[in-house]
Amino acid sequence: MRTDEAPPRFERVAVLGLGLMGGSLARALRGLAIPPRVVGWSPDASEVRAAEEQGVVDRIAADALDAAADADLVVLATPLEPACRLMASLARAMEADALLTDVVSLKAPVRDAARIADLARRWVGSHPMCGGDRSGFGASRADLYQDARVWIVGQDADPADVARVEAFWSALGARPARTEAEDHDALMALASHLPQLTANALARVLEAGGVAPDDLGPGGRDMTRLAGSSPGVWRDLLAHAPPSLPDAMRETAARLAALAALVDRGDLDALEAWMSTTRTWRTGS
Amino acid sequence: MRTDEAPPRFERVAVLGLGLMGGSLARALRGLAIPPRVVGWSPDASEVRAAEEQGVVDRIAADALDAAADADLVVLATPLEPACRLMASLARAMEADALLTDVVSLKAPVRDAARIADLARRWVGSHPMCGGDRSGFGASRADLYQDARVWIVGQDADPADVARVEAFWSALGARPARTEAEDHDALMALASHLPQLTANALARVLEAGGVAPDDLGPGGRDMTRLAGSSPGVWRDLLAHAPPSLPDAMRETAARLAALAALVDRGDLDALEAWMSTTRTWRTGS
Repeated sequence: MRTDEAPPRFERVAVLGLGLMGGSLARALRGLAIPPRVVGWSPDASEVRAAEEQGVVDRIAADALDAAADADLVVLATPLEPACRLMASLARAMEADALLTDVVSLKAPVRDAARIADLARRWVGSHPMCGGDRSGFGASRADLYQDARVWIVGQDADPADVARVEAFWSALGARPARTEAEDHDALMALASHLPQLTANALARVLEAGGVAPDDLGPGGRDMTRLAGSSPGVWRDLLAHAPPSLPDAMRETAARLAALAALVDRGDLDALEAWMSTTRTWRTGS
Repeated sequence: MRTDEAPPRFERVAVLGLGLMGGSLARALRGLAIPPRVVGWSPDASEVRAAEEQGVVDRIAADALDAAADADLVVLATPLEPACRLMASLARAMEADALLTDVVSLKAPVRDAARIADLARRWVGSHPMCGGDRSGFGASRADLYQDARVWIVGQDADPADVARVEAFWSALGARPARTEAEDHDALMALASHLPQLTANALARVLEAGGVAPDDLGPGGRDMTRLAGSSPGVWRDLLAHAPPSLPDAMRETAARLAALAALVDRGDLDALEAWMSTTRTWRTGS
């Protein structure tokens, strides 16, 4: 759905949660040519204090509802469970024509929560594919969203509202792309959950074998970086794991066992062919 | 074996192979306060041309033996198989008191080749734990070895010669550490080969599931970067795979399957505990 006119921009943005994602969003909004007014809130007092001290928001709200009441766009920049919990009370607080988005990396559970909260028509979910080893406000940075793919899910929303949220991300240098919640979550099972849990499995084997992180070269460090991810954030995500995830994990285990059999047999041709296939996929050459 | 005097530095270094490792070594040697004279050689004509044009060596040798004849340190900066092949002819060409090292990421096969070539007492093997996605002279850079761990293996060599090779790497900003060939290779099975083949297994699952590299976030990109590694380099390494590798791969597969069972059961406590363990190992906190 395209029109010749740019969608109207948001003028008052409420950012609920001031960790890596919310803090970075507040910073990025500050850097716009015509920045919106940004109201921030976080359940974490140290994040609130840091955001105030560094002046990344125009106002710190007393609570989530206070923040949401004063916005034409409410951004839930919290993990999955708090986002779903907050949503239940937001419907009452939000202005009638305000929109709601979030940055949770699964979309079906958030969409379901929006429906239960009677917010589905005003919810346009976002999933920015960016982040880092470190979490919290201290790790936030103005360019986090630069060039990041942002998946946009708004099955129940007005197409014009979906376009507004897309334009919001585009203005920050991100690359929005539309999808549907179930398709998105199935993709994430492969693109995000599977790599995460593979790193966790690998790290346990290395630890059991007496390998220290300092023994790793760049490749081994890459392959275990996710082993340092936040257990709390992932607990929430795994509570709503896409149904395809366990089978994808078992398939990966089977492929690794198949590679082990090739190493056992010394089948160098088959190993080289396998690596050539993945190199083509990964590098395009 | 420590003495109060610094070991005598090498004054004429032959670098055989001018790819990422050899090209970077030549560049790094150029940057020393008192640079040695560097003779280079490569079987790849385009690498030779680039090294000449960019003036990273003092002389390009006609062949490997010509290079080796004019050096007090010969560095085999080739993959495993060519390093072992070249060694057979080097003994005749090298000066009587010249030393030999290499940068191959497995040490037992190179040590065995040195013994067969009657070079074991003059060979002090090196394994710099650095590299990158890209290979070839075009990817070489002067700071590749800066801060890199370099494993040093010289079981049959004079301790004073081992110390000289260690000092060679220290001068380039690297961090040499002594080990023995079999211990080194068992560590590499876990720290290098296992992460590599895990990336190859994971990449095939993602490709089969229709995931494009562009669909990945930073974590998924980290976890598949090694899937782009050179199949030719790895063919050589896997031909000499440490005997412990296949079992380590099967153990990783089993752990991933165990995690899948936890996801199936929704055992969030066990998943969180697993992730906390790997986080502690990986981040130290």
